[in-house]
Amino acid sequence: MSVSIYTASVPVFTQMLGGLQGVLAKAEAHVAAKKLDPNALLQARLYPDMFPLLRQVQVASDFAKGVAARLAGVEPPKLDDTEQTFAELQARIASVLTFIQSLDAAQFADADTREIVTQAGTPKEKRFTGSSYLCNYGLPHFFFHTTTAYAILRHNGVEVGKKDYIGTY
Amino acid sequence: MSVSIYTASVPVFTQMLGGLQGVLAKAEAHVAAKKLDPNALLQARLYPDMFPLLRQVQVASDFAKGVAARLAGVEPPKLDDTEQTFAELQARIASVLTFIQSLDAAQFADADTREIVTQAGTPKEKRFTGSSYLCNYGLPHFFFHTTTAYAILRHNGVEVGKKDYIGTY
Repeated sequence: MSVSIYTASVPVFTQMLGGLQGVLAKAEAHVAAKKLDPNALLQARLYPDMFPLLRQVQVASDFAKGVAARLAGVEPPKLDDTEQTFAELQARIASVLTFIQSLDAAQFADADTREIVTQAGTPKEKRFTGSSYLCNYGLPHFFFHTTTAYAILRHNGVEVGKKDYIGTY
Repeated sequence: MSVSIYTASVPVFTQMLGGLQGVLAKAEAHVAAKKLDPNALLQARLYPDMFPLLRQVQVASDFAKGVAARLAGVEPPKLDDTEQTFAELQARIASVLTFIQSLDAAQFADADTREIVTQAGTPKEKRFTGSSYLCNYGLPHFFFHTTTAYAILRHNGVEVGKKDYIGTY
């Protein structure tokens, strides 16, 4: 009657980041075919005070990396947010995939009850159990950014479909 | 080391549909304050072949209802997709919330291994275990539509934030 915290996190992030890689590959092919400035997509936003595509991809990969690491009880690798191209975004996602796939299901053994503190020491500090951290916080934020990245590209006429977003599982 | 299928589904759908209700309430208030035609938002799309806001909300609530029902092994209530106003969308979400909250955690007891078949009898038929159905299919689709509904409203200048999207948990 239950699903392991590992199964509900790492394979889901892997699936969706794979989908995002496919979506970004189609976006890059679209840029090449139409001879566009890649920044016309990388810096596209749905509204002036929303993150552009490039930042949505960075944050989506950050949630995958950070949530998986905290649930496994390890320190997430630091990423410097220096990406400026589609190729660099692909490399970032690939590095996050390598990291999360290096985690072993056994590291998630006590993850459901482990206390996880976000924004520790700030007025926004929040304490979770591992299972709440994943279900009520990590997944909603992760999917928010993968979907918004997709939405930005769809809005700009890149021919991607929900199948691309969903990825392979 | 695991989370129950109930905990990973019903409370998550409840949280996010509550968030969506708040987002839609702000959209309706925006319509009133700016004296807009409500259909300017309800029929807004991010691209011509994407669903408009109204349909995104219908589909998001359908995923919550359908996924929870299948995991609980019950027939989901039929909804007729006749909504045309913000008030009707709110009523639809409320009815889905009432339905999913009527499900008992015990009904999800064998959900992780129960076989779930989507689009049965069609060329797109797919067979899942309950846990894969939730993690690899149900949640990605559900979050896709809640996020896209939010994105349509953000794109149209409704003052909502990620906190509204995330809801209360």
